[in-house]
Amino acid sequence: MTSVWLDRVRFDAAGLVPAIAQDATSGKVLTLAWMNREALERTAATREAHYWSRSRAKLWRKGESSGHVQRVREIRLDCDDDAILLLVEQAGGIACHTGRERCFFLRLEDGAWREVEPVLKDPKAIYGD
Amino acid sequence: MTSVWLDRVRFDAAGLVPAIAQDATSGKVLTLAWMNREALERTAATREAHYWSRSRAKLWRKGESSGHVQRVREIRLDCDDDAILLLVEQAGGIACHTGRERCFFLRLEDGAWREVEPVLKDPKAIYGD
Repeated sequence: MTSVWLDRVRFDAAGLVPAIAQDATSGKVLTLAWMNREALERTAATREAHYWSRSRAKLWRKGESSGHVQRVREIRLDCDDDAILLLVEQAGGIACHTGRERCFFLRLEDGAWREVEPVLKDPKAIYGD
Repeated sequence: MTSVWLDRVRFDAAGLVPAIAQDATSGKVLTLAWMNREALERTAATREAHYWSRSRAKLWRKGESSGHVQRVREIRLDCDDDAILLLVEQAGGIACHTGRERCFFLRLEDGAWREVEPVLKDPKAIYGD
């Protein structure tokens, strides 16, 4: 299998690139996660988002525990070859481990971060106790 | 001036966080850039996007050379406190230094990156020769 397209991507010193997941239907930016080469390769091969978990130091198929998989419609690369954008269909309508639709639920208002998106499902119900 | 909100942001070992700029009108993801603490503080204070240029190692007001400033409508932070999302009004309708609307103009198709967005303005006309 050729990987010329993969060779173009400029992974950083840790072997990672930031990857934005955007909801293909609503246009909302859901998450920013990280990919190593294998995560990007698997994402392209399976059309399901795979990331590199920096906290757990392992490859991770998004939704493998929660069921909240991201079906990938498009994979894009930026002008500097060092950032990825995925257009995804978000299973369950929940991308965030807090049970919210998306991770960007804090908005700066009058010098404070305010939570502006509701918890749709208790994380305990998503992941078990 | 209080900076409690700034203290919450988890900058990486290099003092940076990734910052996504999304067009507030079209919903398109325009760019992924980087901010240090000062860039984020100035962005909030001026409501114009400021970034840290890793290649030039300097603070940079988006549009300072091109005129393609980003007026900031919203600043968001994610669940891990380590990624920023800006909702912006993009002056000139051009966010990318290549003269395209946005930086994510390469789409993966059949194992190759294909340019899928047109150059709207010659970079020489934007930046001068």
